[in-house]
Amino acid sequence: MVSVLLIGHGNVATHLNNAFLDVDDILVTQISSRKLDSIPQADVTIIAVSDDAISEVSSKIKNSFVVHTSGSVSMSDLKNESKKGVFYMLQTFSKDKKVDFSEVPFCLEAVNEKEYQLLEQLAKSIGKKIYAINSEQRKTLHVAAVFVNNFTNHLYKIGNDICKENKVPFEILLPLIKETALKIEELSPKKAQTGPAIRNDKKTIKNHLNLLDKNQQKIYKTLTKSIKNSID
Amino acid sequence: MVSVLLIGHGNVATHLNNAFLDVDDILVTQISSRKLDSIPQADVTIIAVSDDAISEVSSKIKNSFVVHTSGSVSMSDLKNESKKGVFYMLQTFSKDKKVDFSEVPFCLEAVNEKEYQLLEQLAKSIGKKIYAINSEQRKTLHVAAVFVNNFTNHLYKIGNDICKENKVPFEILLPLIKETALKIEELSPKKAQTGPAIRNDKKTIKNHLNLLDKNQQKIYKTLTKSIKNSID
Repeated sequence: MVSVLLIGHGNVATHLNNAFLDVDDILVTQISSRKLDSIPQADVTIIAVSDDAISEVSSKIKNSFVVHTSGSVSMSDLKNESKKGVFYMLQTFSKDKKVDFSEVPFCLEAVNEKEYQLLEQLAKSIGKKIYAINSEQRKTLHVAAVFVNNFTNHLYKIGNDICKENKVPFEILLPLIKETALKIEELSPKKAQTGPAIRNDKKTIKNHLNLLDKNQQKIYKTLTKSIKNSID
Repeated sequence: MVSVLLIGHGNVATHLNNAFLDVDDILVTQISSRKLDSIPQADVTIIAVSDDAISEVSSKIKNSFVVHTSGSVSMSDLKNESKKGVFYMLQTFSKDKKVDFSEVPFCLEAVNEKEYQLLEQLAKSIGKKIYAINSEQRKTLHVAAVFVNNFTNHLYKIGNDICKENKVPFEILLPLIKETALKIEELSPKKAQTGPAIRNDKKTIKNHLNLLDKNQQKIYKTLTKSIKNSID
């Protein structure tokens, strides 16, 4: 039996709690980060609070092994005096959407091998995709995730804005969006690149710019230039 | 029985030909655009050649009803003297990947109602998602598609580049990419937006910029600014 203490009540803490509750040999307890006066003992203490609060919360914990779940915070930012680690899941969690943990990549780090194995045991109990990722590598993943998730979603928003302005239903674009995402599971993004920029189709590029507002034009020009420069 | 003549031998023409071959009451013929000396008669002639060649190819055709398949070319760019229309499928077609036409949006246009109904009949024989889209609306869809498909794919490439440079497997990001695309089937892109830009998390933004090269920094800054400006 492994005892797990979850600190936090956001999406990550709640989804993790629900997943661990279903595992026979894990005993999970969830507490709010506002109740750190009497912290229960546990084999693994998982701090799942906002990035800014991790240092302070960790400084109040005396448990033997403390990890956080953040992509952008170093392991060394944990201020507990006991053993440290990271239990980072690279996925976007929504409040009302069930998480399929078998599809979530677990990026694990710990100071010692023994503690790493404990994290691996936890991850394997609810998931399948497990990676040993150190703090430097995790920073890389986090910034790459900003491009493929946050920035991509903003491009979806611009697509939606353009459709709205011209009274065309955005739903027409959803199958293309899905196919674009699934395509790179088989083809590298470099090989999958299509469109006027990679063809250097100046006439179409000019026509497109005429249809856009100033901000959209700036993004269009910046990305078109970057695509052109990516040709070997 | 409807007779269809397909002109062209690219991905669109080939996938369409294969789909129509399976339909009982459609008689399909495919010819190369280089063999326009003796063009067979047909109820619908579909020109599926590169955008630049559409006008010239259409000028050589005397058949009664001629359409093209392009997202960025107007119906009036067809130079045949008979009836005109557009049979545009908003999807990305790859050579070796089977197309699920039930998932493809068909954007149809014709000068007359009778011809529109013929196009609708063709689309319904192989697909499900059918939209009446005029040339102005199609231009809108085409530029929106550049954002959600071509530009998004370039962001995937940058994510891949960042991972490669830092020796982290890009495959770790694939579940996130998929979830980001599927999320907006339930949530508007505006509501789905997450990340340091929308939180105005200056510390993380600064850390990220330090990890990027000049070109990546420019894209990061441009999109971060646009996300910040999108907050009401």
